This record gives sequence, C-alpha cells and structure tokens, in this order.
Amino acid sequence: MENYAKLWLGYTEKKNNRESKCLKKIVLSGAAESDTIVKNTVLELKSGIKAMLGFEPEIIVSADNILSSMDLSSGKYILDAEEYSVQIEDDGLFIESKSASGILYGAFDVLRTIACEKSIEKSYSSVKTVRPSNPLRMLNHWDNMDGSIERGYSGRSFFYKNDEIIIDERTKDYARLIASVGINAVVINNVNVKSAASYMITDRYFEKLAQLGEIFAGYGIGLYLSLNYASTIEIGGLDSADPLDERVIAWWKEKMAEVFKKIPTLKGFLVKADSEGRPGPFTYGRTQADGANMLADIVKEYGGIIIWRCFVYNCRQDWRDRKTDRARAGYDNFMPMDGDYHDNVILQIKNGPMDFQIREPISPLLGGLKKTNQMLEVQIAQEYTGQQIDVCYLIPEFKEILGFKTYCSETDDTVADIINGKTFNSRFSGIAAVTNTGNDFNWTGNYLAGANLFGFGRLAFDTSLTSEEIAEEFIRMTVSGDDNVVDVIMNILLPSRDIYEKYTCPLGIGWMVTPATHYGCSVDGYEYDRWGTYHRADHLGLGVDRSDNGTGYALLYNEPNASMYNSPESCPDDLVLFFHHLPYTYVLHSGKTVIQHIYDSHFEGYDEAERSAKEWDSLKGKIDDEIFENVSERFKRQLINAREWRDQVNTYFYRKSGIPDEKGRQIW
Amino acid sequence: MENYAKLWLGYTEKKNNRESKCLKKIVLSGAAESDTIVKNTVLELKSGIKAMLGFEPEIIVSADNILSSMDLSSGKYILDAEEYSVQIEDDGLFIESKSASGILYGAFDVLRTIACEKSIEKSYSSVKTVRPSNPLRMLNHWDNMDGSIERGYSGRSFFYKNDEIIIDERTKDYARLIASVGINAVVINNVNVKSAASYMITDRYFEKLAQLGEIFAGYGIGLYLSLNYASTIEIGGLDSADPLDERVIAWWKEKMAEVFKKIPTLKGFLVKADSEGRPGPFTYGRTQADGANMLADIVKEYGGIIIWRCFVYNCRQDWRDRKTDRARAGYDNFMPMDGDYHDNVILQIKNGPMDFQIREPISPLLGGLKKTNQMLEVQIAQEYTGQQIDVCYLIPEFKEILGFKTYCSETDDTVADIINGKTFNSRFSGIAAVTNTGNDFNWTGNYLAGANLFGFGRLAFDTSLTSEEIAEEFIRMTVSGDDNVVDVIMNILLPSRDIYEKYTCPLGIGWMVTPATHYGCSVDGYEYDRWGTYHRADHLGLGVDRSDNGTGYALLYNEPNASMYNSPESCPDDLVLFFHHLPYTYVLHSGKTVIQHIYDSHFEGYDEAERSAKEWDSLKGKIDDEIFENVSERFKRQLINAREWRDQVNTYFYRKSGIPDEKGRQIW
Repeated sequence: MENYAKLWLGYTEKKNNRESKCLKKIVLSGAAESDTIVKNTVLELKSGIKAMLGFEPEIIVSADNILSSMDLSSGKYILDAEEYSVQIEDDGLFIESKSASGILYGAFDVLRTIACEKSIEKSYSSVKTVRPSNPLRMLNHWDNMDGSIERGYSGRSFFYKNDEIIIDERTKDYARLIASVGINAVVINNVNVKSAASYMITDRYFEKLAQLGEIFAGYGIGLYLSLNYASTIEIGGLDSADPLDERVIAWWKEKMAEVFKKIPTLKGFLVKADSEGRPGPFTYGRTQADGANMLADIVKEYGGIIIWRCFVYNCRQDWRDRKTDRARAGYDNFMPMDGDYHDNVILQIKNGPMDFQIREPISPLLGGLKKTNQMLEVQIAQEYTGQQIDVCYLIPEFKEILGFKTYCSETDDTVADIINGKTFNSRFSGIAAVTNTGNDFNWTGNYLAGANLFGFGRLAFDTSLTSEEIAEEFIRMTVSGDDNVVDVIMNILLPSRDIYEKYTCPLGIGWMVTPATHYGCSVDGYEYDRWGTYHRADHLGLGVDRSDNGTGYALLYNEPNASMYNSPESCPDDLVLFFHHLPYTYVLHSGKTVIQHIYDSHFEGYDEAERSAKEWDSLKGKIDDEIFENVSERFKRQLINAREWRDQVNTYFYRKSGIPDEKGRQIW
Repeated sequence: MENYAKLWLGYTEKKNNRESKCLKKIVLSGAAESDTIVKNTVLELKSGIKAMLGFEPEIIVSADNILSSMDLSSGKYILDAEEYSVQIEDDGLFIESKSASGILYGAFDVLRTIACEKSIEKSYSSVKTVRPSNPLRMLNHWDNMDGSIERGYSGRSFFYKNDEIIIDERTKDYARLIASVGINAVVINNVNVKSAASYMITDRYFEKLAQLGEIFAGYGIGLYLSLNYASTIEIGGLDSADPLDERVIAWWKEKMAEVFKKIPTLKGFLVKADSEGRPGPFTYGRTQADGANMLADIVKEYGGIIIWRCFVYNCRQDWRDRKTDRARAGYDNFMPMDGDYHDNVILQIKNGPMDFQIREPISPLLGGLKKTNQMLEVQIAQEYTGQQIDVCYLIPEFKEILGFKTYCSETDDTVADIINGKTFNSRFSGIAAVTNTGNDFNWTGNYLAGANLFGFGRLAFDTSLTSEEIAEEFIRMTVSGDDNVVDVIMNILLPSRDIYEKYTCPLGIGWMVTPATHYGCSVDGYEYDRWGTYHRADHLGLGVDRSDNGTGYALLYNEPNASMYNSPESCPDDLVLFFHHLPYTYVLHSGKTVIQHIYDSHFEGYDEAERSAKEWDSLKGKIDDEIFENVSERFKRQLINAREWRDQVNTYFYRKSGIPDEKGRQIW
C-alpha cells in the first residue's frame, strides 16, 4: 500500500511504442554525466520506459556545450539554457539542451509522449524544439511550520510537522512531479511568515533547508523562502525594520551572508509586506521600493532575487466610503515607483486587482508597469473557486489572462508577452501559482484538482498549449487512456470554470461568499465589512461604479481598454457589474436583463453541475475505484453547494428587486 | 492590591446609622450556634458593621424552632424555612427565621440597609418580614473545565483551570456575594457537558466537589451539576443511553449512589438533552419525559432533583421551509407529556421561545404546562444583548416577563405566579439565570453588568422589588452613595435595555446578528442558515407570519393572548414582526410606518447610547477611577457597535424597500 498517489508519474504498462526501435538507445546531449540532474534523468528514463514498455533503454550522455543549469543572471539566459530538442536520428533518440535542466525536460517530454500513448516515431520524426515560455515557473506554498496550510484543501503540509521540516521519499517525488511539468522554482513557506517560520533564516533550520535545496536542485528547481519583513525586530533584537536604517541594513547584510552560505542552493525570497496586518516599509514612512531594494541590494552578491508581492491595500475600509476602491490599491501603491525597483527585484502581481475571484479584470499593473520586472501570480489553491470540493479546471481562465491584450506596446502586448520578458526585455519575469497541494493521498483533495497542478506547470512552460491539450494529457496520464473515459472527463473539466461562475457571483461582481472560510454563499457576507469588497445592491440595481463617474478605476487601463471598460455599452457582460452599477432591468449584450441573467445563469449553473456529476457517475467500474469514489463524494458536496448558491442568490435578488423570473421557476 | 472587586460586599465606611443603638446587640433567633451558616452570618455581621460603622455588635444566637435549612422535600417548605423577619425590640435588633439560611438573608438585609445608608430605625421599627418569592433561585454557569466559558464575556472561569477545580478565597467570596442577594442554588458547569466535565461524576473530581459543596452549603447554596446524558456511553462503557434499557438504568443507579455518597451536599442535576447536537432520549425513540423520569426516579432516594431544559428544536432547518417554526419547538416537544414528568423533575424553560433575543414573547409553555414543575430560565450573560460591552440592564425585561399574564387560571396567572409554585401548587419551581461572571477583576466585564448579577438575585428573591429600587441599591452599594452619581447611573441603567433594542433588531424580529459570535450586526447573517431564525425581508416588507395563516404559533397561547397575537391590529408593536409579515408601509399603533419606525428607532437608539456615554463621562473624578475607566472604555466600543447597527440596519432596509427616511437623515 502506497502512502500517496503517483499521479502523472505512475508509469503503468502501455501498449503503443513497445516496438519503437529508437527508444532502445537514448542520447542525452549537452550535459555532464556527473551532474545530479543528469543522473536523475537517466534513472527516470530507465525506470519509466521499463515500467511502461517493458525494456530498459541504453542511455548515452554526451557533455558538449554545458552551461550552468541555474545561473540566474538573467531570464533570457534561463530560456536559452532550458530550451530542449528531441529528435530521432539513425541510431536512437537524441535529447539535446544547453543545460542539464533542459535535458531533464526533454526526457519528461519523451516519457509523457509514451504515457499518452502517442507514437514516438510521429512525435519526433522531425526535430521538436521547445523553449520555455517563462524564465520563472514557480509554486508558492502557503504551508505553515505547524503543518497547517493557509487556504489548504488537501490535508496537512508534507513539508512541515510540529515546527520541523520533513524530508522523506515524498519530498523527492514532489520534486519529480513538478519538475516533470516544468516548474523550476518553489517557495516552501507561507507568505504570512509567523511563529517558527520566522526562524527559517537561523541555525535552527539551515541543515534541513540545505538538504531540501539539494533535492530540489537535482531536479532543476530553485529553493525560495518567504521572508518576515520584520525579522530585524522579531529575531534580530532591533527595534526597527526601517529599510533606510543603517542598523537594519547591517543586520540583514550579516544575516544574508550567513543564510546563503548555509543554504548554498537558495535562490531568493518572496515578501508580503504592508498587507493584511503584515509589517512593511510603510510603518516607517518608506515606499515599497525602499523595502524591496534594500533587501535586493544585499542578496545581489549571492545571485539572489527579491520577489515582492503587490497585494497591498487598505483592509480597514469603511463600507460607507464609496471613494476608496480596493481595486485601485495595487496600482496606486506600486505604479508611481515604476523604474525605481532595482534589477533583481520582481513585483509579483495577482492576475486581478482584487483577490482570485472567479472573474476579475486583469490587474492594471500588468501593462501599466514598463520599467519593472514582473511576475504574474495565480492561485490553483481554489480558495474562492470551490476549495477542491467543486470541480473548477482553471487553465481556461489562465489562458484568458495570458492572452489579454494590455496595449502597452504596439506588439507583444499580451500579459503572456509581459511576463515572459519579451515586451520590456525584463531581466527577470515569469508566473507563480499559489499551489493546491497537501499530504492527502491524491495530493490535491479532489483528484480532478490535480489537473490544475499539472496544467499550471505545463502552461507556464509552454503558454501555446491549449486547455484541451493539457486536460487530455492529464486524463491520459493519470486516469485512463480509454477514449470514452477521456471524453467524459474532458466534458467535465473544460466547462467547469464557466459552471462555477454561473452558480456563484454574476457578471464579475464577486465576493458573495461566506466571510473568512470563503466557501459557500453569503450575498451580504462582505457587504458591510472592512475589506473593500462590496456589491452595493439595492432595490433598483447592483454593481460598483468604477467608471470616470465613480472611482475612476477603469481609466487605469491603456486605451482602448480604458474606454471599453468605462462605458457599460462597451464593457463585456462578464465584467459589467465589476465596472458599473446597473439597474436590474438593464439589457446586456446577451439581450437579457441583468436580473434575468442572474436567474438564468444560476439555474443553468446548477443544472450543468448536476449533469457533470451524472457524467462522472457513468465512469463507475471504468476507472480506478479510489479515484471514482473520491470525485463522486466531492460532486455530492458540490451539488449541495451549488444548490445553496443558486437558491440564495436568486432569492436574495428576487426579494430585493421584486422582479419575478420570466420562466416562473422556483425562487424562495 | 486585591485580585478582584468586592462589589456589594465592599463594606466601606458609612456616615448614617453610626449612633444606632439597636445595632449594638443583634439577636439571631431560630438557628443553632453550631450551624456553619450561622457562624458565617455572625462573622459577616461583625465584620460588615465594624467596617461600615466602626463598632462590632454583640451577637446572640437563640436556637428556637430550628428546621433543616435545605430540606428539599417541597418548594413550599423552602419558602417557609427561608422567610425571615427583622425587627427592633427593646434591647436590640431581632433577626428571626425558621432556618439558618433565613437568618443569613435577614443579616444581609440589615447589612444592605446600612450600606445603602438607610436608617435602621426607620427600616425596622415595625417588623419587616420577607418571604422569598421563589423556592429555587439559581445561577447556571456555562464554565468549561479547561477554564473557558461558553458565552463568557468577563475573563476565564474562576471554578476551573486546566481541567482542575479551583478552590480559593474567591470561591468563598463568590458564595458570599450570591448568597447575599438570595441565590440558593448553583450549577457549576456548562450545560454542554464534554471532555473533562463528563468525568465530574467520577473519582477524579469527588474530593474537590465535596469541598466546594461544603463551602456553598455554608451560605445556604445548593450544589448542582450539569450532566452528560450519554454518560453511560462516554464514561460507562455501555453502547446505549436508552432510558428504558435495564443496563442503562442499572449503571445510573450504581453511579448515583456513589455520587451522592461522595458529594453529600449535592442537590441534583441540570440536563441539556437532544439539543444542538447533544445526545438525548430521542436517539432511542424515547420521549423527553422518559429520559428525565429515569434519572429522577434514581436520584429521588437521595433527595435529588432533575432539572430538564426545554431548549429542544431542529437546528438543521432548511431556510426555504416556511412550515417548520423553531418558536413552536419547545411547546411541541414538551406539552404533550404534561403530567407525565415525575414530581422531582423540573422543566427549565427559557423566557422566550427562541433564544434570549432582546425582545421575544413569553414561551407558551409558561401558562401551557399545568401539571409539571416549572422553572424560568433567563440569561444575564449578555450573549445577544451586548456581551457586557454594551450597557444593558436587564431587570426591566425580567419584570415584564414575570408580570406577563398567561391566563392559565383565573387568578395567579402571571409568570411570576407559575414559577413561584402558587398557580399549580407545584412541588418545585423557581428561576435560573445563565450567569455573567468570570475571573475579571470586576467579575462581569463591564462594571455596570454587575447590576444584572445583583439584580437577578434580588428579583428572584423578591419579585415585588422594582427595577429602580434594585438599580439604586446596586449603585449605592458598589459605586457611590452620592445622590448625583446615583441619578446619573440610574439614568444610564434604566433605559439601557430600550436603547439596545432600538439600535438593534426592530419590532421583535431578532436575529440580525453576526453568526456564531452573536455580537454586532449582520442583517442577513442567519437568513439563509439552518437555525430557524429568519426575518423574511423582501422589497415589500418583513416579518414572520406566525398567525393562523402562517405557522400557527400565535394560537399556542391561552386566550385572549392567542387572539391578541394572531392579528396585527391587536398585536403589540414591539412584537409585531415576530408574529406577522408586514409591508414596510404598514402603520403601527405608534402611527408610524414600519420602515419609518426602523429608521427612527435606529437613529434614536444611537443618539441615546451616545447621551448615556456622555452622562458617564460626567462622572470622571466623582467615582473610583478604575470603575470609571472600565465603563468608559466599554462605552467607546458600544458606540462603535451602535453606529454599525444603526447604519447597517437602516441601509439594508432602505436599499431593499427604496423608501427614503421622512426626515432625510444620512442612510448609506
């Protein structure tokens, strides 16, 4: 009995490619045999092919053109190094790269092709070259050292227990799993750094962190830590964390010298400052740039980078105040210093201006900032999107985000272009996901939530992949290669984000969620609270006026986006209540009124969720029982949740508007 | 430096009565000198008079007509025994009673007269005889053995710490404090009996409980425990708690024999069964009477009684369901068995049918049950009435409750008549309060909340006292005898319940409160939840139809109450939304519309709270600094709370109804 699922590295027996001649001999070209990554690659190929196809390939390593695999002097350099090619030549399969990491990714490409039962001959008859889309492809763990996980929905941490770091077989398999989909950077602790985690940069944890960093490095993964901005006070014994205070700077210099010496594989830090009660430079009248630059200057000599979160807003807002707009806060706090951030600082920007709602516009910092290293932050932990109870395949959303045209330059103006470093020739850039893992047997609570972990890595590595391609790979590699099963699960995954949106918050308004837990409906739950998250519904209409008549937020975008969002006539339906306060009787582009859209979408959303659940039921006996039962049980809970959302939202707006459903369906 | 306030037993120096000749010699007539209660009485009189007046009285004990002070064979017997007389005769002050407890109460009467600086000569020139109104005058502590207190707002428990029972000086002073106001029964642990508390009836705690019971007995206080109904399973090793199962009965017989032997002063048990997840006879298809009678029969031979709470309702209701009515539940669950409960069972009935909202009708069980021992339960812990942050003097509410005419018989039909045993010649009856104490220096969080502890005892002992008399005694005994100070605080206390009602839930609807914590406004907080607590507000009106057109709850009352409540025309304004769903434009008896009443009362409530706070400010320098600062700080929080309630309730109903305030005041 195993302790955890192998997911897409399960390597079960496959029918196709058993006679593939080119798989008998594999040449790894461009890295040294002595490199740990290469050793791991050889092991992976041998065991994977043996398990899937029944024979062990001969593997030849040829060390031409070796580059240091994780030199971080610039993002472009990483892209060059991590690019790989796979091609069939006369006497076998050639995997080439300028780095061991690239070789590893090439090997996983081959293993994935076999696992998906695609023909090796067809796949690699002409050379297949893949260049990673993003230099940094990162997971952020919100794991606490007591073993809990903030917004974790799949068990306890597999990194920590009782304030100790766990290193075991699962640690290595975790590294294999995420490296296989292209992740090259991991922050292992919660951005809210408290209690024992404040001591990660002390002797107490150096030895274990060094070990962990070595394991990660063996799979091309850089180790990062979340940093307590107030370390000088909390562990340093100083009375200040002022970034311009010489004592503070001196303390950090000494501390960083020690930390990078004791944890040689460490790549840098993630910092959440001045946010939701966390300390930061604002306390001392300094800017966010002052704080980030101070740390960046100190870690520079160790090749370190500082990733600085832009999630800074007033979380003590008065609900009566209609001038303050939380959506503006990131922009207002970070834009004025564009160009001031030093070149080893990266600003990490959430995809939307609020906080991972099911539908938000793109953060106007993306396309706003022009002289600053930027990284996109998304959340595969389904905090507001069903908490790994409800199925919600997020890759279609991430595709929308990446494809959004910011008009920040004449070409290369999509979010994807900005974060891959192309638009502004950024020194560092990339994409990070708040991860959805825990020590549950299947790692992600709902087995299907594994598609988000798998898919995030795949998409971060190659943003040209489609949601369909990624879903199909996930299903074939982890559930079944049976075409009917694949079809059924594709039909569940692909519309799941739209379904979740339909039965929850309509037209981009967001936040009708149970306070604190963030699961389940509470239309007024945040309406009279301090978090800046309001729907402003009255008996005539709802929505937040963020046009030039309101908070002016719409105008933070480049044209023509600003004009598009500024007017309800041109604003897309799915965001219209985010930008405008509209009457229930307002007619959308769809031809429906706002109120009828609310009713229709909520009835549809529930019905479609129910249909998905039934489709899943049809898989009984056709797939692994454990997977079947896991997802079945989650669907039961999803339907209870979806019904509550449907009925509470419909009832709330019917009671408030007095306008009946055109179709006369049951509203309470 | 003391560890806790002495409250009304502070015994500070007094000017009046220093020359009172009759205080030099006090005769205690009717009890034995060897009785612990008598010894305590003598000590109290000597030390109290010495501290207040500067001399020590001679005390003579005369043992004529001694009765056992705490024989519980019937309530009437208790009343006879605890009655006392105080009178000046030639050679001194005579305190007479048929029991030591009565003597103690008489002594506290004298001490109170001195503390309030009333003339002893005038007070006792003719004989003053006081007969307690209620046989059982009880406090219910919701203290847990880990030291926490469920719904406690004044620190930790002074009975428990880390699962151990604390016995120290404070234990004795607690007994003195509550005996001095007439309390004669205390349940020392939470009705939700869990964890260590389940082991109270085992060897683990017998020794300490016996000690505690002795201390209580020395002040005429009976010790009671809350019982875990499922003890047979949780500590007995059986697989059942079926009250008709012979093994269960046998286990309880043996257990009770042991418990009453080891804790000789024990008087009985309080049981919360089949309520909010607690186990009970329903699990086994038995009635509440089956459960209560089984235990009562067993404890009978030890003179024990079983107090059985009537707080049984479906706490998993569907908000869509308009037929189920939580208000009916107590009646529906307990009325059918009227007459079945054995004669040492007492049903403990909350004052209202819901749960201690600021305004509820009287429980229809009071006046419904005719052949059952009954006890009224009120809550001085301010769970829903400001949590000892907001001032809310509850005695006026308790006076209303006691004075309510149930029409259950031609005379003696008030709630007071029922619970004092008169109406139905009940064997046992009385009144219990869920108490508001904790280990805060001042015992009750807000110093002024002490008036509820003091007042509950005084009122339970003598229901003829007025709210004003009680408030004045409290102020004079604990704050100041200065007439101006007394006036100011009377003006704060007396209207405080009306003020709290005004800025919170209008017209009897209740429940617009933050879920779980129960402090602060959340109009829809319980509207879509499972607790049976709804306001049903839509764009046209609000309220719950409990008339014969609705749930029929109104008809559970005796006539003419049933008819009065059944029609909005005759229903009192302050309960009209409890009984009826009315349009916002409905005109109340006050001449105002419902919506205008909501606006007016909320603006008034806040303004009046603000005025009270200012009145308190005028006391700076005139009273003890610690008391002044304590209440000042609470008033600051009360005003923040009141402002939120005012603005959220007004905004909610304005947004929903679209009807503006006639007076054009600020609504958001």
